[in-house]
Amino acid sequence: MKIPPVKGTRDFYPPDMVRRNWLTDGWKKISLRNGFEEYDGPIFEYLKMFQVKSGDEIAEQLFSLTDRGGRELAIRPEITPTLARMVNQQINSLPKPIKWFSVPRLCRAERPQKGRLREFFQWNVDIIGSDDLLADAEVIFCAIDYLQDIGLTKNNIVVKISSRKMLAAVLQTIGVEKNELDPLYALLDKQSKLPKDTFEKLLAEKVADKSQYKKILELMTVKSIEQIKTIAAQNETAKESVNELNSLFELLNVMGVADFCSFDISIIRGLAYYTGTVFEIYDRASELRAIGGGGRYDNLLKDFGGPAISAVGMGMGDCVLAILLEEKGILPEQLPLAKSDYFIAYADQKYLQKAVEITAKLRLAGFITNFSYKFSNVSKQLKQASNQNAAKCVIVGDEFENNELVVKDMSTGRQELTNFDKFISDIKTKSK
Amino acid sequence: MKIPPVKGTRDFYPPDMVRRNWLTDGWKKISLRNGFEEYDGPIFEYLKMFQVKSGDEIAEQLFSLTDRGGRELAIRPEITPTLARMVNQQINSLPKPIKWFSVPRLCRAERPQKGRLREFFQWNVDIIGSDDLLADAEVIFCAIDYLQDIGLTKNNIVVKISSRKMLAAVLQTIGVEKNELDPLYALLDKQSKLPKDTFEKLLAEKVADKSQYKKILELMTVKSIEQIKTIAAQNETAKESVNELNSLFELLNVMGVADFCSFDISIIRGLAYYTGTVFEIYDRASELRAIGGGGRYDNLLKDFGGPAISAVGMGMGDCVLAILLEEKGILPEQLPLAKSDYFIAYADQKYLQKAVEITAKLRLAGFITNFSYKFSNVSKQLKQASNQNAAKCVIVGDEFENNELVVKDMSTGRQELTNFDKFISDIKTKSK
Repeated sequence: MKIPPVKGTRDFYPPDMVRRNWLTDGWKKISLRNGFEEYDGPIFEYLKMFQVKSGDEIAEQLFSLTDRGGRELAIRPEITPTLARMVNQQINSLPKPIKWFSVPRLCRAERPQKGRLREFFQWNVDIIGSDDLLADAEVIFCAIDYLQDIGLTKNNIVVKISSRKMLAAVLQTIGVEKNELDPLYALLDKQSKLPKDTFEKLLAEKVADKSQYKKILELMTVKSIEQIKTIAAQNETAKESVNELNSLFELLNVMGVADFCSFDISIIRGLAYYTGTVFEIYDRASELRAIGGGGRYDNLLKDFGGPAISAVGMGMGDCVLAILLEEKGILPEQLPLAKSDYFIAYADQKYLQKAVEITAKLRLAGFITNFSYKFSNVSKQLKQASNQNAAKCVIVGDEFENNELVVKDMSTGRQELTNFDKFISDIKTKSK
Repeated sequence: MKIPPVKGTRDFYPPDMVRRNWLTDGWKKISLRNGFEEYDGPIFEYLKMFQVKSGDEIAEQLFSLTDRGGRELAIRPEITPTLARMVNQQINSLPKPIKWFSVPRLCRAERPQKGRLREFFQWNVDIIGSDDLLADAEVIFCAIDYLQDIGLTKNNIVVKISSRKMLAAVLQTIGVEKNELDPLYALLDKQSKLPKDTFEKLLAEKVADKSQYKKILELMTVKSIEQIKTIAAQNETAKESVNELNSLFELLNVMGVADFCSFDISIIRGLAYYTGTVFEIYDRASELRAIGGGGRYDNLLKDFGGPAISAVGMGMGDCVLAILLEEKGILPEQLPLAKSDYFIAYADQKYLQKAVEITAKLRLAGFITNFSYKFSNVSKQLKQASNQNAAKCVIVGDEFENNELVVKDMSTGRQELTNFDKFISDIKTKSK
């Protein structure tokens, strides 16, 4: 019986796995150097966990299941609700600010397409328990630190930054009611993906007042924080949020990453839970979907039964990133070559057991060591050793009748005879 | 709204995650030094993938779901069917023997109990495309290599080894029909878990012939391969499989791990797909469930629509292992301490931006660097630095008016003044 893989999932053959590990290990390394600690949660949670605040798009894309106890569960489509649950569970004992990262496997039942699969990996970094703009800046810095580390430059990528708090204040200045904000965000978030006509038609349907409609259209064309300042002059909250945005850009400048960042009022974020800074990372050519994004969320922990504690976070998936890296030719160059410490060859079937013994001793001492099950002539075995990037090749041949081995340095090609017992007793545990 | 985690799943807070990473990183390190390459598959597959050959226990414990396209799916309870599918897909292009490992997250809808959870991690190593006993020996060696590496000895653990091929031949010599073997295995596998009376009653129900029943009971008390030899003398297949078992033990001796291994006729394995060598790893005191196990499976690839290719593999979960390591006091000693390269302190709020600038520069150069968002006096910040095991602490204080920084070595306590520009220009990318 031949059963295919499920559409939208990936098989990671060893070369694919090397690439996946290279991506995820990079995320982990950068998180650690930015002071984040790793956490993880279960692959499934109660279904309702993801219906609270995840936004319609995610809630519609759940892989849900019912276990035999009748519990309604779902495979996690994002890890932020789990993060909120876990932090709430230990809120009193965790020192603040909590700086955590995770690299969860996530599933969303969407139609597979370029940069979107039904199963993917996503880097998450979050800072909980500080409303300081330093936290917003650190999260953005951390994302840029990673992208720079793997070889992307300010010419390849841009972090587009705005503020929901600012947008809310300005929209309210214009006359939009507070309860109209959420549906309006959902529409404004789609602006860049919709044809101009369609967007304007949908906006007109949502905003009956002609002057308000015009002001919103104008607002969405604003290019600088300075312009917002003029509009926001009458409103204290708006002014405050504009000042905050300026401070954030100043901090990013102090951190040396301002060249990667620009203000962009069109950044809204699809998820329902953002309340302050919002940002998305794009390729400069804007040919791909967002590589990542995030922002400040003030109410999520409270929504999950915890205290009112502010938080800011970022997510970056592996799919769009991999496309960008391949397009820029960055991936192939950086992948670590498979290599081994020793290859143990044998010149005759009768020396196989000796080869096995040497292999086992070297492995136990920490060395990556290989040998061939099937006997072939030594030159073929040397070729195998070379294909595996072995540093050294040990040959068990007729010299063994004198208790000697041939040890060949594969980079210089130099060979030398070594006493077998001395070789074995000289094996030192490889330093880690 | 407060939502609990699902019973039988685990939250990995940072200290738990350090422990999980320590376990799984160890599995990966040992796999690589034994010449295995890493692979992975999707977290879910078509439901029927796990109904083919996984054995009743696993098939009953599936978390199954139906997607919106009406596809019947299941979260993977084991990775071997995925392995068979993946290898079959590329069977002609993959060089043999295929030596692959994986550390999948798996889910089984069982009742949570000691050493058994509904979500766990399992180390898998498999060698496909060789029927050489070297492969059986390498898989067993690899498991022992890991257990030894983390500090377990032959006094802590034992690998109990038998052969289904041998058992089948001997049972057939006794008079058991070929089609009666599978249900008989299922019962014999449970012998150690059942009270003596219950086992004998169930066996009597299955084996009507009194003399056959007696011979099977006798067979199951056999303690050595020598004893089997006598029973197997009349049957060629049985004799051959006894010789194979002897050769396997000889190889394990050559590899230097024979002290960890013993013959045990009661080892059958629950899974339906084993056809040759079978083994299980136990704590010497036999107080816990099996730590791991595996064996040779000749028909699995064929059952999944591929060619008839022999394979041998091993699985080891994280739950029982963690219990054993905790009982032996091995885990707490080995966990890597969190540490950082730098902590950047500031003696006055006005120096915060400088601290942020230095932090960013050090991180971009690869150093794990932290600072405090909130200002507190320098001695408090030094305490933070010490709590984080920082190697060095940079203090931005009044010396900065002369463009100087204090750099304190946290292990010696020695402090020195350094010119700020020189400090910055001296930062070299940390070697990896």
